[in-house]
Amino acid sequence: MNNKLSFPYYAVIFTSLRADDKDNSYDEMADKMTALAKTQDCFLGLETARNEIGITISYWRDIKGIQGWKRHSEHLIAQKTGKKKWYKYYKVRVAKVEREYDFRQDRP
Amino acid sequence: MNNKLSFPYYAVIFTSLRADDKDNSYDEMADKMTALAKTQDCFLGLETARNEIGITISYWRDIKGIQGWKRHSEHLIAQKTGKKKWYKYYKVRVAKVEREYDFRQDRP
Repeated sequence: MNNKLSFPYYAVIFTSLRADDKDNSYDEMADKMTALAKTQDCFLGLETARNEIGITISYWRDIKGIQGWKRHSEHLIAQKTGKKKWYKYYKVRVAKVEREYDFRQDRP
Repeated sequence: MNNKLSFPYYAVIFTSLRADDKDNSYDEMADKMTALAKTQDCFLGLETARNEIGITISYWRDIKGIQGWKRHSEHLIAQKTGKKKWYKYYKVRVAKVEREYDFRQDRP
């Protein structure tokens, strides 16, 4: 992710519990959606991790970019299948990132 | 987490890469800090997952609550040890949650 972002930018926090149905269609979709999100205008980056719950955060330049991604035709199909098949529960939060700082062990 | 939150509330997004040093002091600290955060004023909830990267998101009623937690004496010690020992990299983002929606498979 570009480290020279201007503020504010936006985070979409997606937290989820997977349904019991565990074929590999979920992983295929997740890979495809990640690749597709990266081609979208205003997309800044994505971070994801899963243990008991899954957390995926995508970062966007503005709300318009988020809305465009939400309405993207292939993403709409994934959302629909997600409700039917992949997720027991999910929550989406749209948040405005107001400040940030970081630490790197090897920073001089 | 209480589902009847009023907006806005705040998310502190903590993403990290662990250092190679893998004794169990990290897990002890993580459990302790989670328990301690739950006792803080303005604390609303916490979600965490780790694979290649770790993502921990804590939710807070307001910025003052976040600042209080950042300066908490035991949390300060954890932050210091984190830089010295536990983390290769981390990033902290403070974000204002502006809207949210969720899905539950068994919702009537």
